Amino acid sequence: MLTTTHVVTVSDLREIVLQIGLDSFMDEIISGIKDILRLDPLKKKVPARDGFHYHKPYPGLVEWMPSRVGDGPVVIKLVGYHPQNPKHFDVPTILGTISVYDTKTGHLEGIVDGTFLTAVRTGATSAVATSVMARQDSRIVGMIGAGAQAVTQLHALSRVIDIEQVLVFDKNPMVAASLAARCHTAGFEVPITLMEIDEIVPNVDVLCTVTSLDIGEGPLFSNVPTKPSLHINAAGADFPGKTELSRAFLLDSYVCPDHREQARQQGECQQLSDDEIGEDLDVLVRHPEKYEHLRSQRTVFDSTGLALADDVAATITLRHAREMNLGSFLQIEAIPADSMNPYAILTDVQKAVR
Amino acid sequence: MLTTTHVVTVSDLREIVLQIGLDSFMDEIISGIKDILRLDPLKKKVPARDGFHYHKPYPGLVEWMPSRVGDGPVVIKLVGYHPQNPKHFDVPTILGTISVYDTKTGHLEGIVDGTFLTAVRTGATSAVATSVMARQDSRIVGMIGAGAQAVTQLHALSRVIDIEQVLVFDKNPMVAASLAARCHTAGFEVPITLMEIDEIVPNVDVLCTVTSLDIGEGPLFSNVPTKPSLHINAAGADFPGKTELSRAFLLDSYVCPDHREQARQQGECQQLSDDEIGEDLDVLVRHPEKYEHLRSQRTVFDSTGLALADDVAATITLRHAREMNLGSFLQIEAIPADSMNPYAILTDVQKAVR
Repeated sequence: MLTTTHVVTVSDLREIVLQIGLDSFMDEIISGIKDILRLDPLKKKVPARDGFHYHKPYPGLVEWMPSRVGDGPVVIKLVGYHPQNPKHFDVPTILGTISVYDTKTGHLEGIVDGTFLTAVRTGATSAVATSVMARQDSRIVGMIGAGAQAVTQLHALSRVIDIEQVLVFDKNPMVAASLAARCHTAGFEVPITLMEIDEIVPNVDVLCTVTSLDIGEGPLFSNVPTKPSLHINAAGADFPGKTELSRAFLLDSYVCPDHREQARQQGECQQLSDDEIGEDLDVLVRHPEKYEHLRSQRTVFDSTGLALADDVAATITLRHAREMNLGSFLQIEAIPADSMNPYAILTDVQKAVR
Repeated sequence: MLTTTHVVTVSDLREIVLQIGLDSFMDEIISGIKDILRLDPLKKKVPARDGFHYHKPYPGLVEWMPSRVGDGPVVIKLVGYHPQNPKHFDVPTILGTISVYDTKTGHLEGIVDGTFLTAVRTGATSAVATSVMARQDSRIVGMIGAGAQAVTQLHALSRVIDIEQVLVFDKNPMVAASLAARCHTAGFEVPITLMEIDEIVPNVDVLCTVTSLDIGEGPLFSNVPTKPSLHINAAGADFPGKTELSRAFLLDSYVCPDHREQARQQGECQQLSDDEIGEDLDVLVRHPEKYEHLRSQRTVFDSTGLALADDVAATITLRHAREMNLGSFLQIEAIPADSMNPYAILTDVQKAVR
């Protein structure tokens, strides 16, 4: 048996995405997420994520998001959310890594980035939600919050609807202004217009909210009319006490959570009782014919982050790395020649390098 | 800021332990565990571990054991327990890896083996428990179960008491017979005598139970007399439903768990109500004078596995690796030059390698 761990670095990841092409990579993640959501729910084990939340040394959290599909590996993302990262350390708010553990033996099979992949899979999950809840002729997209997540939301949406125009707001005008250039480097071009929130909301077919609002700062808007069929991807980073939309607005919409338990703890669904919440995304994906009517209603996808989507992103990336012969294979676990003697590693020639 | 991850392989680990010496390495872990247990409990966050338990493809579990001390990093061990590993794959029952996440940013600072280190820290924790609960003139040690954990239990105990004789039982006579040779390769020599359980129990000062009993197979013995001051380290791998000692035996002993909540779910304490359980190990370590009388009583240390001990073992190992310039520094997280643009990693020269 292979006892080394496949470590995929960022240069391996870059090589993978460049070889496949960013659009195709995103398409693979989108369809991988659809496939995994379609599976029998009894085959998927996804405990609500847990973690440490703190205010020192800086406000933030580190959470673990485990999942297991069928008899497959345990995939666990460890992810940090530290809003002061860009300011203090010039690194993204969300940093993470995803590890894959073989369930035959407990061996760590592989480890891969969870920062780029979180951004990609969060976009991809919104694309899946949009593809089942929005009108298929949606053309105008709104974006409230123009940070890192906005880039991947727009890119992912562009793979499932034909975007003609994007209306953007960010409380930091510099961030809003730079979104077009960031989209350009990513290779997709969409006309972007900066607007105030109250001008954006009434005029868009699909809206993404991807802000880093502080607890109690929301909602982003209230008493603003919308198109009757507006679909919202409420995908801002989630936190107990943080919400982007008002309870009144949610009550007038069909609210579909990605993971009910998690959404009730950290998402927009914090504001709703169980019977005010619609079905989870996987139900809509499994029975699209039954939910076709949602396309003409106002819908909100309450995206708190799906461990299953991390599973998809990590599995696809590691498979490409293997096929392209990218990454390093390192012997991290101390596996002695005599499995009954932990100290044998001190005298053995490591058998794992055979 | 450093954005690479310090990956310590088994050859790095071997080099560290050989340079320091196995005895000194064990002593460092033992005193590190004592130090961390002495800290103000409010400074330590250790949720009970959680995980996936399954019967396919083989019976086993993968669990995550997170901890955080003060404003320090989040240390998380992912550990598998698969009793058929030695038979099917010639690898240890317990395989694991320990990861350290910086809580300023969420960055994965380092990753290191959790197999050797689990064995060492489990031994070290028993040594700590023995040093506060057993008679200091204990000379005769019993060992029920002679597998991988027996080696490190004996080694660790030899660092806190003067062992004159070891009485050993394993249901597999080959395993029992090879323990002496395994201890020899580890560099410590103790006269080992194979015996039946009922002969061992009455004659020892300190007993370690480190079996892989199946659920419902226990207890290991009943109605066997013991020395009045016997101290037991019940350190077999733990599982809901699995116990090594009988409820009657526990009721006649002072039972000290390593982590009350976990012990009530998975340890010997499953058989006890809260008021039948003594103080946790950290209380005894913080107030040794108050618990001096336990040395003359029958005591049981219910060892289910302390995430804090993993924290100590990983932190010490990573510190030595840094000081000895061992290990690889790999850029796993995809940190773009523009923290607002995840896709910048595709075009950037990676800024993290500066």
